[in-house]
Amino acid sequence: MERKPNVVILGAGYGGMVTALNLQKELGANMANVTLVNKHDYHYQTTWLHEPAAGTLEPEKTRMKISEILDSNKITLVQDTVEQVHREAKKVETTSGQELPYDYLVVALGSESETFGVPGVYEHAYHKWTVDGVRETKEHIEYQFAKYNNDETMQGKDLNFVVAGAGFTGIEFIGELTERVPELCETYDVPRERVKMFVIEAAPSALPGFDPELVEYAMNLLENRGVEFKINMPISEVNESGVILKDGTEIDACTVVWATGVRGNPVIEKSGFDAMRGRVKVEEDLRAPEHEDVFILGDCSLIINEETERPYPPTAQIAMQQGVTCAKNIKALIQGGELESFQPEIKGTVASLGGKEAIGVVGNKKLYGNSANFMKKMIDNRYLWILGGARLVLRKGKSPF
Amino acid sequence: MERKPNVVILGAGYGGMVTALNLQKELGANMANVTLVNKHDYHYQTTWLHEPAAGTLEPEKTRMKISEILDSNKITLVQDTVEQVHREAKKVETTSGQELPYDYLVVALGSESETFGVPGVYEHAYHKWTVDGVRETKEHIEYQFAKYNNDETMQGKDLNFVVAGAGFTGIEFIGELTERVPELCETYDVPRERVKMFVIEAAPSALPGFDPELVEYAMNLLENRGVEFKINMPISEVNESGVILKDGTEIDACTVVWATGVRGNPVIEKSGFDAMRGRVKVEEDLRAPEHEDVFILGDCSLIINEETERPYPPTAQIAMQQGVTCAKNIKALIQGGELESFQPEIKGTVASLGGKEAIGVVGNKKLYGNSANFMKKMIDNRYLWILGGARLVLRKGKSPF
Repeated sequence: MERKPNVVILGAGYGGMVTALNLQKELGANMANVTLVNKHDYHYQTTWLHEPAAGTLEPEKTRMKISEILDSNKITLVQDTVEQVHREAKKVETTSGQELPYDYLVVALGSESETFGVPGVYEHAYHKWTVDGVRETKEHIEYQFAKYNNDETMQGKDLNFVVAGAGFTGIEFIGELTERVPELCETYDVPRERVKMFVIEAAPSALPGFDPELVEYAMNLLENRGVEFKINMPISEVNESGVILKDGTEIDACTVVWATGVRGNPVIEKSGFDAMRGRVKVEEDLRAPEHEDVFILGDCSLIINEETERPYPPTAQIAMQQGVTCAKNIKALIQGGELESFQPEIKGTVASLGGKEAIGVVGNKKLYGNSANFMKKMIDNRYLWILGGARLVLRKGKSPF
Repeated sequence: MERKPNVVILGAGYGGMVTALNLQKELGANMANVTLVNKHDYHYQTTWLHEPAAGTLEPEKTRMKISEILDSNKITLVQDTVEQVHREAKKVETTSGQELPYDYLVVALGSESETFGVPGVYEHAYHKWTVDGVRETKEHIEYQFAKYNNDETMQGKDLNFVVAGAGFTGIEFIGELTERVPELCETYDVPRERVKMFVIEAAPSALPGFDPELVEYAMNLLENRGVEFKINMPISEVNESGVILKDGTEIDACTVVWATGVRGNPVIEKSGFDAMRGRVKVEEDLRAPEHEDVFILGDCSLIINEETERPYPPTAQIAMQQGVTCAKNIKALIQGGELESFQPEIKGTVASLGGKEAIGVVGNKKLYGNSANFMKKMIDNRYLWILGGARLVLRKGKSPF
């Protein structure tokens, strides 16, 4: 009897989960050993994390046990952290010292925050967009309010919050924070006027690439909720007291939240793949160049939008679509057949602004307010449907009303 | 027309509130101007604070607006902090610079933590048993759990909690914390065995003065929930890393909660009253010695138990009883009549141990477990009844079931 090939998937994010789900459905049990390696025993929704970070959603709502989604008879879960891929030896090395040999590898390890070389980010800013990370951010924020009336050095001072980056994550986070702040002020007897919120963006516009009319809508709305924007203004340093801007301005801040974008997982560079900011420009079939056996998905992959000749920003939408193609292509490699080319299909983009507010584009249509909010919730719920059907939507879904 | 006398009550704790309530009922509107000076616009239940400190009760449940309890037509509330009493000039000076002249003064300003000269308590321990204080303690505790999985320096280390003092407050607090910890471990994915709890007591026994059989019951129960007691062991220092004990042992701790007892409000000594640890040994009619016009109640007062020839420990029970006598004596001074002697009537003492557990003595009867827990809840609710009747019990009361 021929040896069954080993398929090893690294990372249980959007790309890894969809790949695993599709292999589970389409591969016969005797066709391959499929292993999923992940740091935690749960999957979580990266795109929802701005909510638990600000405290407007229970962190628990954003995660689910992998064992409740995947069939452990068909996919073996290894809970461990990936240290490095040994491409020549075709093995994955983990932090606990395991070696997992592969015939086909899927690298879908996600991203980490891009600091652009700004000193102090790791030490002084909340930069981890993970379940563990945002729970810390949330508790830290609440602690600042709880401390306010006890710490005499804070009397008469402001509770300043700085969000670095006015991209998708930064805007969605500040949207939630502006909703939360009045509630926190009431709970902890902090005068509302003592709380100041800043969003600092190095690029010449907030939400770069988004429709300017929608960007204006979002900024007006957030300014009305008390946010001060500093656009076209790089941050040169984060330190214990707050941030220093390029023009020399210092903003004291009890909390700096870092959301200037992401780079691919460091395992990519450590393993010797050719990469730009941790992202590998993959072939059309999603394999790494010169690698017949390695697929790279999601935030670790880079694909070019041929219309604009610029890379697509990494999104959950693209990662999930890649997962479908990747599973098909692995099946073709095992069973024989043509490999598919991946072409992203951008169905729409919606950014929530907190409360019942959102902005978005679906097709050519611009959406504001309630309709955008409705669409956002539908997108979130649709993903749950893909992963776990109606049962999961009921358990973890969001009501748009 | 004769000038109406000014009655000024300092502090809206148990003693001050009961005095004000009784004056409001018994004094005709034309007989005196009654002013209540308090730092906040709310009254709170000091004896409940171990619960919100550990996070087992909403802090909001422990406080109530003074305006919802007292009639603002009869009692004027001045929201300000008392700086000093000028006894000769018969004026109260506040932090904002107000001067309040009085004919009769009631000093019921409560207490602050006694450090016994141990260095580092104010800087490194949670020592404020106030609404603001315990909200900070609670958020700090939660933040330690939230941080655990993000901060690599914490990996493999323990989350150590030290409670200084095994008196009433220390024991009631650790009781709540032991109930809360398993919940926090689950929420934040912290292994239960990584959390260690210590209670350190300088005296030769926990709960000094309590029945030894009940003390043993409480210690066994708390040890079974994972608490390690160090009895007969003074703390010599609190610092950034934790505590240093008298025998040289260092206990690393992310959180030190200080509960070694209280001393009277510093305003007492600052104003020149003769005092021991901020407490004035009052006359039988509750006036300060050599002061015809100043009553001192609650934690700022000291009264001797003639049976044991030792001071009664300051409790809410005694402060409330003093408030009744104080109001009667002020009425007698204004209207004429004999002043009453105060005699405390100790109806019972119950310490909660978290969950449905408690210990206590009512009359000569020892109570354990459910019956003690029931009694504790009844005591808490009875107080609400005194303050605000059935309506307040419904809003803020505790179910014993």
